[in-house]
Amino acid sequence: MIKVGIVGGTGYTGVELLRMLAQHPEVELTAITSRKEAGMPVSEMYSSLRGRVNIAFSTPEDAKLDQCNAVFFATPHGVAMAQAKELLAAGVRIIDLAADFRLQDTAEFEKWYGMPHQCPDILKEAIYGLAEINREKIKTARVIGLAGCYPTSVQLGFAPLISPRLTGGKRFIDTKYLISDSKSGVSGAGRKAEVGTLLAEASDNFKAYGVKGHRHLPEIEQGLKAIAGHDDIKLTFVPHLVPMIRGIHSTLYARILPEAFDVDFQKLFEDFYANEPFVDVMPAGSTPETRSVRGSNQLRIAVHRPGGADTLVILVVEDNLVKGASGQGIQCLNLMFGLPEDMGLQQIALMP
Amino acid sequence: MIKVGIVGGTGYTGVELLRMLAQHPEVELTAITSRKEAGMPVSEMYSSLRGRVNIAFSTPEDAKLDQCNAVFFATPHGVAMAQAKELLAAGVRIIDLAADFRLQDTAEFEKWYGMPHQCPDILKEAIYGLAEINREKIKTARVIGLAGCYPTSVQLGFAPLISPRLTGGKRFIDTKYLISDSKSGVSGAGRKAEVGTLLAEASDNFKAYGVKGHRHLPEIEQGLKAIAGHDDIKLTFVPHLVPMIRGIHSTLYARILPEAFDVDFQKLFEDFYANEPFVDVMPAGSTPETRSVRGSNQLRIAVHRPGGADTLVILVVEDNLVKGASGQGIQCLNLMFGLPEDMGLQQIALMP
Amino acid sequence: MIKVGIVGGTGYTGVELLRMLAQHPEVELTAITSRKEAGMPVSEMYSSLRGRVNIAFSTPEDAKLDQCNAVFFATPHGVAMAQAKELLAAGVRIIDLAADFRLQDTAEFEKWYGMPHQCPDILKEAIYGLAEINREKIKTARVIGLAGCYPTSVQLGFAPLISPRLTGGKRFIDTKYLISDSKSGVSGAGRKAEVGTLLAEASDNFKAYGVKGHRHLPEIEQGLKAIAGHDDIKLTFVPHLVPMIRGIHSTLYARILPEAFDVDFQKLFEDFYANEPFVDVMPAGSTPETRSVRGSNQLRIAVHRPGGADTLVILVVEDNLVKGASGQGIQCLNLMFGLPEDMGLQQIALMP
Amino acid sequence: MIKVGIVGGTGYTGVELLRMLAQHPEVELTAITSRKEAGMPVSEMYSSLRGRVNIAFSTPEDAKLDQCNAVFFATPHGVAMAQAKELLAAGVRIIDLAADFRLQDTAEFEKWYGMPHQCPDILKEAIYGLAEINREKIKTARVIGLAGCYPTSVQLGFAPLISPRLTGGKRFIDTKYLISDSKSGVSGAGRKAEVGTLLAEASDNFKAYGVKGHRHLPEIEQGLKAIAGHDDIKLTFVPHLVPMIRGIHSTLYARILPEAFDVDFQKLFEDFYANEPFVDVMPAGSTPETRSVRGSNQLRIAVHRPGGADTLVILVVEDNLVKGASGQGIQCLNLMFGLPEDMGLQQIALMP
Repeated sequence: MIKVGIVGGTGYTGVELLRMLAQHPEVELTAITSRKEAGMPVSEMYSSLRGRVNIAFSTPEDAKLDQCNAVFFATPHGVAMAQAKELLAAGVRIIDLAADFRLQDTAEFEKWYGMPHQCPDILKEAIYGLAEINREKIKTARVIGLAGCYPTSVQLGFAPLISPRLTGGKRFIDTKYLISDSKSGVSGAGRKAEVGTLLAEASDNFKAYGVKGHRHLPEIEQGLKAIAGHDDIKLTFVPHLVPMIRGIHSTLYARILPEAFDVDFQKLFEDFYANEPFVDVMPAGSTPETRSVRGSNQLRIAVHRPGGADTLVILVVEDNLVKGASGQGIQCLNLMFGLPEDMGLQQIALMP
Repeated sequence: MIKVGIVGGTGYTGVELLRMLAQHPEVELTAITSRKEAGMPVSEMYSSLRGRVNIAFSTPEDAKLDQCNAVFFATPHGVAMAQAKELLAAGVRIIDLAADFRLQDTAEFEKWYGMPHQCPDILKEAIYGLAEINREKIKTARVIGLAGCYPTSVQLGFAPLISPRLTGGKRFIDTKYLISDSKSGVSGAGRKAEVGTLLAEASDNFKAYGVKGHRHLPEIEQGLKAIAGHDDIKLTFVPHLVPMIRGIHSTLYARILPEAFDVDFQKLFEDFYANEPFVDVMPAGSTPETRSVRGSNQLRIAVHRPGGADTLVILVVEDNLVKGASGQGIQCLNLMFGLPEDMGLQQIALMP
Repeated sequence: MIKVGIVGGTGYTGVELLRMLAQHPEVELTAITSRKEAGMPVSEMYSSLRGRVNIAFSTPEDAKLDQCNAVFFATPHGVAMAQAKELLAAGVRIIDLAADFRLQDTAEFEKWYGMPHQCPDILKEAIYGLAEINREKIKTARVIGLAGCYPTSVQLGFAPLISPRLTGGKRFIDTKYLISDSKSGVSGAGRKAEVGTLLAEASDNFKAYGVKGHRHLPEIEQGLKAIAGHDDIKLTFVPHLVPMIRGIHSTLYARILPEAFDVDFQKLFEDFYANEPFVDVMPAGSTPETRSVRGSNQLRIAVHRPGGADTLVILVVEDNLVKGASGQGIQCLNLMFGLPEDMGLQQIALMP
Repeated sequence: MIKVGIVGGTGYTGVELLRMLAQHPEVELTAITSRKEAGMPVSEMYSSLRGRVNIAFSTPEDAKLDQCNAVFFATPHGVAMAQAKELLAAGVRIIDLAADFRLQDTAEFEKWYGMPHQCPDILKEAIYGLAEINREKIKTARVIGLAGCYPTSVQLGFAPLISPRLTGGKRFIDTKYLISDSKSGVSGAGRKAEVGTLLAEASDNFKAYGVKGHRHLPEIEQGLKAIAGHDDIKLTFVPHLVPMIRGIHSTLYARILPEAFDVDFQKLFEDFYANEPFVDVMPAGSTPETRSVRGSNQLRIAVHRPGGADTLVILVVEDNLVKGASGQGIQCLNLMFGLPEDMGLQQIALMP
């Protein structure tokens, strides 16, 4: 059994880790910390866990995280990097669901997250937690900077088009003019008391936000450059708030280069993801629904080329709290400890 | 033109006052105060008002409320009673949408609202703002303690059964065993940042709250006693939170006394409300929907006696922000200033 | 492995059976029938099942249901009773999710369902599928008439108060004046194209329906009489439609008899359900939420006595498609085949 | 008073016409037809109209539409063109909310709507009902083919960029590569019983649809060509279904041509719509919300140029049933009969 601790489990990614880890056959959950709620059984905050998860929040001091094999950080940005050094020294492996270990450029990190990076040396060895792209590196990683929710959908949606793996390095699309029109349920904003995500404000409503610049933009562009193997990438990223709890739907637009007009893009995607347990390339003509992945670690993709013209439209759906966060974290955990990649991640989506 | 000011207009009842008063032909809105947002155009907070309501929030000092004919308090409890004396001295009439002037018993007020009452003398002259019950008194009132949202639906639902007006003092139902199972949209909780009313918490969900005791219980019982003309009233009141923005649906249960088994309750309700502009007694067998009053000052009632047995079921719907708050306030304003009772209140509900 | 077939799996209870049975370690799903959709993979209708459930709908003829150990009927009323005789003759055990085997009085059945009962003899041996009440009988039953969604919540909510098991036959409440104010998500109406349950009609809205008389009323009263061991039962049942997908919340009202004023009702409920795997009596003061059981077979109950007065308020939540239908069916299946009662039913609710 | 009739008023655009026309000071509503519901008071279908709109549906025969000054067709495609000739002969002016008089190319009409056009001659004189573009022509039109809901948002969003009015014919954007990622509430699908728009299917969900080709695509391209004055237009149009009742949000993407890098696009939009009563160009940096126009005829636009790069992002919101249908129709009616353009269209949006 792998001993696992969770730092900061009061948010939505925390409860999702609990839900899935409680049913993971090779994980022993030893501690979950929350200084503010120390002593409170987790099932008091999330009644869905009553009778199923019987531990209480503990203070970081009582949690003895240094005795874990792995620790998840389901915390605000800045927490993981403050504790990473000590845990690594104790031989603990780290999976950070926040952004501390995502951006390799510390100047970019400071610009977007408004704080200096506390451990650039650890950042250097951190692996970006997106199993479909970095599977081998994740297996031996000590520190995972888990891919963000939007970035997962956008990168996996564009990857087959830009990765040299199947294209042989040939350019298929104009990578200087990528567009991601993304839509997220409000759980993406977390369990924070804010006026903007009240039901009375956000339901029966739709709007864009962060058009000027969203923290996920540099993360996505960094990831796309890594996948493509070149820096010739420019993305316009417009996130929107959908009046629903969970789910991300990214509608990606790419302009096909004349030399790629004859490519069978449906086949390209199917081949690229042929062996992926959690990526489902749907049949041509499909329109994936976010509810088809509600509560599951699955990500579904559909490839369209309307009117046979020069614009590709890629539709991607995922559950932002599962494949976009906690499930993806467990997927990395499984890889890091030599377990089957889908262990504990076999829940079928809840539909309707 | 009646000069009207609004104190504390940043909440939902504030914006509803603005929406309706902006279209009221005899009202001149002279000021809306918010110390916190002073200087900000109201249309910046509520973009629905762009191009239609062109005033900005002002500080209480700048608002010159003492030059108004009437002032609405769309504030938290405790604000109106702190300012009432001075305004009254200046000849301003007051309509308080909060609870400061609802409960005649100051001990009850202190118990439920956790603060001492600051002006028991003014409270004595205050009129309970429920036009269908207190129409004549409202006309000459200087201070209105406007009926709460739930209380409006419960009192108007039970009134025909307990008022001596049409029953001639005969008892029709067991008033010691009244039940109101009430349901409200989340705007009833106001525009406050709270975890419990986030979309991610409150949507796709249903629950009761305040079962142990809700502030509206003493208000309703006081009102029912006044309507009945006796104190033999006992209500069980269970409010619930509905995943919708607006609307209250109260399902009322009353046990018919044997001596009233032959009463035609449908006719009783129709007669009782025959001349009311804002109370719609629907045909027998109807099930009113909250959306049928969305955005309007209408309240709809349906009377049921399932299986012809001894239990009456009264269904009542209203828009909690209109008939349950701001619309009701304007209805009182019209009465106080001798205007047609429905002036500025003729919006048809938005459906779908 | 138990061979299981499903008749009529295109509705919501069908997909829920598939979701849960696909993860049941002792069940082999051999066939799912739909004459209309024969040949279509089930995952084409429910994309949530893609890659997880690989069978297709078949015609009843091709399904070879007579070779199953058990067959679920997830069909409209009237289908199961037409096929029961033949299946029973082949040694197949039947779990009907519709109403064919619920009402023991065939005249009542005809009155509420508008069709004659085709096999009164089989009806006589049918067991009412509510494990918490009929556990022993279910173990050996050949035919289960599974408890309906509302009836499950109402019966399990009143049972501790009226069952002689812990009361010793003493009356605690006035059973002639029971009230159930019940609320259901719209999936309770099934996957039928109807104007009334369109999102544009049912969302941001709340209403009662079926006040004159609902099919579940006779079922509930029959069940309560059986639990109480006497016929002195009268229920007022008012169902409401909540703008959410899943979940039932029943708010039950009962008048405490003077001789029971000193009973510790919280303890009574806790004792009554002490050993039940799927009934959670929450701590005093709790207000259960429907989302706390979303996708799970759990039912949660809270007991209230507002103001210490003579009215008991019992709050009950369940997922109408799981504990109110498919999960309950699998619970019965487990009992019928000597498996652990909670096998395949261990999903933790999805929250948020 | 203008005598107005409505053909086919049982759908959502019908009830919206009723809601607004009932408050229009210069309109007398003389008839509303529905063969199926003839005799039923409209307020029985839409309880929001109880006490406010007192006419009943009538058969086309009884409606005496030929005595109207104007007739709205709120019908499925194909109805208006069957009745147009006779009404025109009687001197009645026609406003068709369906597609019969939108596409000037009858071959295109047949391709997308699957029926031959019955009156190509009348089609020739029909004016496309988009007041901001065709104001003068509308004033004298006998037949209006009202702009569709999506097309209104897309055309008014791109118009300032492509119309020669302010650009002086200079090209600002690459009109061969326009993208509209559009999102609509489900009322856009109408009041038809369909599985896909049930609350249990469409709520807490998000998906694209019609990616292969949507009927509004040829209408939009025709409109953009007319606005631009050239045929060099190519649009990728991807509509999505949002779990809300009303509202359209179109996110438009356009690539700025190098020669236009210095254009002040914010000012361009403000100038272009400076005198429009129903188009609100919001301040730079805004993100318009659909709820800010709920129930109103307003359309709001925000102009973005993320990172100062070469992609323009235009955000447009409207109420699909008002500015996207019925309100727009009344706007045309006002123009046709020489009334103030905003008469009867002054409702402020309902927010929250």
